[in-house]
Amino acid sequence: MKGFVFHGPGQASWEDVPDPAIKEPTDAIVKVGVVTICGTDLHILKGDVPEVRPGTVLGHEAVGEIVEVGGDVRSVRPGDRVLISCITSCGRCRFCRDASYGQCRGGGGWILGHLIDGTQAEYVRVPYADLSVYPLPGTLRSEDAVLLADIFPTSYEVGVLNGHVRPGDTVAVVGAGPIGLAAIATARLFSPKRIIAVDLAPARLEAARQLGADAVADVHEAPGQLVADLTDGLGADVVIEAVGVPESFELCTRMVRPGGHVANIGVHGRPATLHLEDLWIKNVTITTGLVDTYSTPALLRMASAGRLPTGQLVTHTFPLEHMEEAYDVFSRAAETGALKVLLGGERHEVAVPAA
Amino acid sequence: MKGFVFHGPGQASWEDVPDPAIKEPTDAIVKVGVVTICGTDLHILKGDVPEVRPGTVLGHEAVGEIVEVGGDVRSVRPGDRVLISCITSCGRCRFCRDASYGQCRGGGGWILGHLIDGTQAEYVRVPYADLSVYPLPGTLRSEDAVLLADIFPTSYEVGVLNGHVRPGDTVAVVGAGPIGLAAIATARLFSPKRIIAVDLAPARLEAARQLGADAVADVHEAPGQLVADLTDGLGADVVIEAVGVPESFELCTRMVRPGGHVANIGVHGRPATLHLEDLWIKNVTITTGLVDTYSTPALLRMASAGRLPTGQLVTHTFPLEHMEEAYDVFSRAAETGALKVLLGGERHEVAVPAA
Repeated sequence: MKGFVFHGPGQASWEDVPDPAIKEPTDAIVKVGVVTICGTDLHILKGDVPEVRPGTVLGHEAVGEIVEVGGDVRSVRPGDRVLISCITSCGRCRFCRDASYGQCRGGGGWILGHLIDGTQAEYVRVPYADLSVYPLPGTLRSEDAVLLADIFPTSYEVGVLNGHVRPGDTVAVVGAGPIGLAAIATARLFSPKRIIAVDLAPARLEAARQLGADAVADVHEAPGQLVADLTDGLGADVVIEAVGVPESFELCTRMVRPGGHVANIGVHGRPATLHLEDLWIKNVTITTGLVDTYSTPALLRMASAGRLPTGQLVTHTFPLEHMEEAYDVFSRAAETGALKVLLGGERHEVAVPAA
Repeated sequence: MKGFVFHGPGQASWEDVPDPAIKEPTDAIVKVGVVTICGTDLHILKGDVPEVRPGTVLGHEAVGEIVEVGGDVRSVRPGDRVLISCITSCGRCRFCRDASYGQCRGGGGWILGHLIDGTQAEYVRVPYADLSVYPLPGTLRSEDAVLLADIFPTSYEVGVLNGHVRPGDTVAVVGAGPIGLAAIATARLFSPKRIIAVDLAPARLEAARQLGADAVADVHEAPGQLVADLTDGLGADVVIEAVGVPESFELCTRMVRPGGHVANIGVHGRPATLHLEDLWIKNVTITTGLVDTYSTPALLRMASAGRLPTGQLVTHTFPLEHMEEAYDVFSRAAETGALKVLLGGERHEVAVPAA
């Protein structure tokens, strides 16, 4: 089969790889239908995630069809259309038993496209299939469901739920890429008073408005002052970090009100400065997190009912074999306006050309 | 009357000051019975708290007798023995209505010995008396009650409750001064599996054992390794920072398990480094806080029932007019072994001489 193989920093290609096979009785083999590229994949290509060994097929988000299952798999069978979650869970370790699947110590967690071959291929082996894939209702298109493999549960759990967004809150979201936009969309589920989006790209700020931001601010134009002005000088109740650089995290800690929450979603490669000399007295709560995907079933119910704006996040679609082109478009998002790019599925004939 | 007056960094003395008088109808005047010195007072003397103006009487912890009340005070009257809380609350602002009294925007919060004259004097004016003093039951000695003015609610709320200590947890407490010791004592209320105390002073580690620590570690002898060894390499469920320097905070973030809590109590004067490149994926929660004292009524009930080891934290007592000597003993804790020093009350005849 074909797969998108990492060969070390800056090197990857769509090439022939061996077909995956069942290794454990809890495995399933899935024929990939729709797959997407994550900002984390770009981090891997930059060399920021050294655990990824050369030779690994990338990708941790997909929808596909079960083609084979191991002898212990009970909840899916060949022919089922399933969501492949970015998080695999053994279901048995202390963390899985506490619904902290992202921290699985039994061989799961984020492993696809990280520690084992991932979803950017024609077929993928999914360990612990009973707990790691989700059968899809017929009413939910694969092109929508695939956004629930990672970005929606990540934004919702690590941003909105960890940040304790409540009705009436002022919520600031720093970073209006796909993760920040999904955070805006899921923050709205809790009826905040106001959502303020911060980014440096006008197109992303416009997308943020369309997803439900009530105010937007260019990161270079004193976004902290805007937040202060809109909150009687107090700061936002909840600030969600969706970038992953020290500067944006530090901006978040300046924008939060006393007693407020800073929920970090960003994948960071460098330390940040925590201004405890200001923050010790402010009763702030700072959370970090890899998604656990405990919310995936609820998000699937919402998406099936048309209550998540999944389609608004997709800007480009490609045939599966155009993986390298898709990476190019996604990695040049500032030029191409790319948010989520999809591969496979039924819509690749409407692919948007690069700007 | 006499009071302990701050005259700028490194300068303070027990001297004549004007008697306080009712200024607002919500004020009370209290004759100070038992008063103590807080580590925060030492920070003020070092110049770390620039809001404190020269001429201010220090102190934010005391027990005393109401001698006069303003016309709007309803819940106490002259003759009542009361605890003066370190936190004053207007009761009307958005933060007070949310029980976040420490963040009071109506003229309260931490004001005694900070923004207005404090308790290290013969008399003190307490604003918003109805909400800022607590009548004491006859069964509770003033020498025990005074520990509930600051350190017990601070350790309990900002350490134990913010840290979400739960039965079965492994709790690490970094810093075994009065605040850390009170955190150990109140963490035990939630039946943790194990409490590990970290400090650099053998005497404080011994005190930690007596207050309920199951294991102790010298901060220079790889405390993180001890915690790892005791937790199958995972780290502590809850880590409480009770020092207030960047190094101890950073140690705390290394000792916490994935999914765990770091509760910062320490008063910090400098920024710390937050290793988001390690922490982003670990699902940690970091909290900071000034105490709100919402727990004070419950702590008073517990202390009245003899269920808080208040007495074990007191090492020295002095007559009130020995304030300067008491500061000297407290500020040289490493030599004198001082934990809490009390002034006034009935036990000053048992004062422990400085080493």
